[in-house]
Amino acid sequence: MTPETVKEEIYAMGKKAKQAAHRLSILSEAQKNEILCSMAVELRAKTAEIIAENLKDLEAAEEKGLSDAMVDRLRLDEARVDAIAAGIEKVATLPDPVGNVLDKWTRPNGIEIEQVRVPIGVIGIIYESRPNVTSDAAVLCLKSGNATILRGGSEAIHSNRIIAQALQEGGAKAGLPEGAIQLIPFTDRASVNVMAGMDEYLDLIIPRGGTALINAVVTAARMPVIKHYNGICHAYVDSEADIAMAVEVVDNTKTQKPSVCNAMETLLVHESVAEVFIPQIADEWLKHEVEIRGDEATQEILGGRIEVATEEDWTTEYLDYVVSVKVVKSLDEAIAHINEYSSQHSEVIITENKANAERFLNELDSACVFHNASTRFSDGEEFGFGAEIGISTDKLHARGPMGLKELTSYQYRIRGNGQVR
Amino acid sequence: MTPETVKEEIYAMGKKAKQAAHRLSILSEAQKNEILCSMAVELRAKTAEIIAENLKDLEAAEEKGLSDAMVDRLRLDEARVDAIAAGIEKVATLPDPVGNVLDKWTRPNGIEIEQVRVPIGVIGIIYESRPNVTSDAAVLCLKSGNATILRGGSEAIHSNRIIAQALQEGGAKAGLPEGAIQLIPFTDRASVNVMAGMDEYLDLIIPRGGTALINAVVTAARMPVIKHYNGICHAYVDSEADIAMAVEVVDNTKTQKPSVCNAMETLLVHESVAEVFIPQIADEWLKHEVEIRGDEATQEILGGRIEVATEEDWTTEYLDYVVSVKVVKSLDEAIAHINEYSSQHSEVIITENKANAERFLNELDSACVFHNASTRFSDGEEFGFGAEIGISTDKLHARGPMGLKELTSYQYRIRGNGQVR
Repeated sequence: MTPETVKEEIYAMGKKAKQAAHRLSILSEAQKNEILCSMAVELRAKTAEIIAENLKDLEAAEEKGLSDAMVDRLRLDEARVDAIAAGIEKVATLPDPVGNVLDKWTRPNGIEIEQVRVPIGVIGIIYESRPNVTSDAAVLCLKSGNATILRGGSEAIHSNRIIAQALQEGGAKAGLPEGAIQLIPFTDRASVNVMAGMDEYLDLIIPRGGTALINAVVTAARMPVIKHYNGICHAYVDSEADIAMAVEVVDNTKTQKPSVCNAMETLLVHESVAEVFIPQIADEWLKHEVEIRGDEATQEILGGRIEVATEEDWTTEYLDYVVSVKVVKSLDEAIAHINEYSSQHSEVIITENKANAERFLNELDSACVFHNASTRFSDGEEFGFGAEIGISTDKLHARGPMGLKELTSYQYRIRGNGQVR
Repeated sequence: MTPETVKEEIYAMGKKAKQAAHRLSILSEAQKNEILCSMAVELRAKTAEIIAENLKDLEAAEEKGLSDAMVDRLRLDEARVDAIAAGIEKVATLPDPVGNVLDKWTRPNGIEIEQVRVPIGVIGIIYESRPNVTSDAAVLCLKSGNATILRGGSEAIHSNRIIAQALQEGGAKAGLPEGAIQLIPFTDRASVNVMAGMDEYLDLIIPRGGTALINAVVTAARMPVIKHYNGICHAYVDSEADIAMAVEVVDNTKTQKPSVCNAMETLLVHESVAEVFIPQIADEWLKHEVEIRGDEATQEILGGRIEVATEEDWTTEYLDYVVSVKVVKSLDEAIAHINEYSSQHSEVIITENKANAERFLNELDSACVFHNASTRFSDGEEFGFGAEIGISTDKLHARGPMGLKELTSYQYRIRGNGQVR
């Protein structure tokens, strides 16, 4: 394939997607649900084929020497295929946001203005590894009336292809417009660049993956991008914290699932409670063998049992049983530290002092700010969205957990009886 | 100035703006209004200086041989300076969107989730000609809690500088944080590229200007861009239109102010009313010497009095007393034409048939879709927003007229009593 052929092929997909998007935008909720259910049926019917194709990806992964964790993320078995199908059925039960009236008012001249949710159009999803994203992303976009162009990673290409095919075939049986869900057959970086330049067809790109991938998309993209970046999340234990609650919540933010973006990476402790709180949380963390990297004050309290936190630690997303700890003199210092080092994902304050809590919530420029609850609740499911396409670390359009509503735009519909200016 | 010095200087402004943005985000509505009123006072006090600086721009414009229309857009006199100051005072009377609760719910585990409007942060505004934009854009951003970095065109540099200075000095007297409003002293394209790459400090760029400028920003930008592009707006006169209303509304969309983006460029007429309607609107347009470019059917009806519309006409924003006219066989053909050629700004259907109207509103993918009212109402003032930063032709974050609300993002504030996952 020459670069020109690749470009031509991707542009042809873009054109098809744009046409499909118009048809999708006027499908009723019932029609979309019927399509979704038919996709789930087809996916289950293709279980054996999917597992056979997935095996090719697993063999390639082992040849390449991918880690066990990576191989496990790729693996599909009967239960996992069933879970993907169940996920589609669940999306069918979620309320359709398209057509919702967000606002409505009448002007003195009598024109009625209505702000109505409409689909975004064509959404490009660029992702790595997990083949379930092929289905999860496509069906959320479909339910919100959008066409998708999917571009998965090379590690999962066989799995992604067969899953996309199942969605297309199952969907077609229930009236899915052709071109509504398409998978780019190329997995090289050049295909990402072609997508990023295709602003006449793509209304939005959502990159889900590592920093290098996201950076490449941001640099090349001519259309809006909603990044799902990393989470350098903070917990702050205030001078007026309930210490028992602080131990339980802070431990949960770190150890309940350290590999995810809403897990805590840096703990800040007010100096007045540091000597009481830090030994207790350190004991708790011994159970999980959490590596503690502390500033000088923390080291003194823990008697040199720990590593030294360097400047680099404050900017690192460990995604592991590692935590950096700093003792601060005040709420102001905590807020300043977080506003400087946070990736603006999720932060929590533990305190019984409402005024301190409100200052923390009000003065932090992060997507989710918590008072006395674990940052692990920064999640579409936990928010009650029913499903999520991811967690936006951007500030425009959608911020924090993104569900179906966040996959829509709006349109003004204005009704008059002959008004002119 | 070497390119490195320019970059250093702009980045230093970016850093300052980011610091100011934090302070702005927690100012009360009363504090912001006090700052705005103090700016208006200072601007009026500097009227003579502003007019003197403006004279330098006007002289340069005449030397360069700019058109009378261009020179008039640049000109500031006492009345215009007063109008700018009055505009600031008006923004002070508008409700502050920051802190508004957009949504609120409690989860089964007891955590309370609140979605609250917060400022976006630092907004870059890139614009051309009109010096009043310096004030209009800066004060709307300020009222919504954002810092601004302004980059105006070379034609208005003297005027822009003195206006920005008046805003800064007037604001400082009432507690405006330093760095909240800054004007880039460079007017070359390189400075635009530096801004476009500065995503660590700029949360959003709004380019207002010609296609070349907007294209340059879109290509280079690493942060979100909200484009204020052109308006290829359509009017469709349906088979069941009230012909008298159609003449009045269609005339208004074209001739009330043809130089603006919400003016109509292409008229589509259902064939069943073409022979009645087209001669009437053509007579109306004779008064304004509107140049009509028609398809074959239109030419036949008007007896060859008109120019021929070519493919290029359907994609042209005339911004002038020129219109393209096409006779269509059906509502479907009208919708298909608009979805193909429109810039998705504003479109209107004239009809007494409600079902046709609703299909038109529902099936068009444009920011503003009208039934029996002029497209000229696509405007922040006409919508009742009190003021507008412009009209977004993008679909993400803000679409159509943008007021104060559209200059905000949101944040989730979650309150619990020790919940963990």
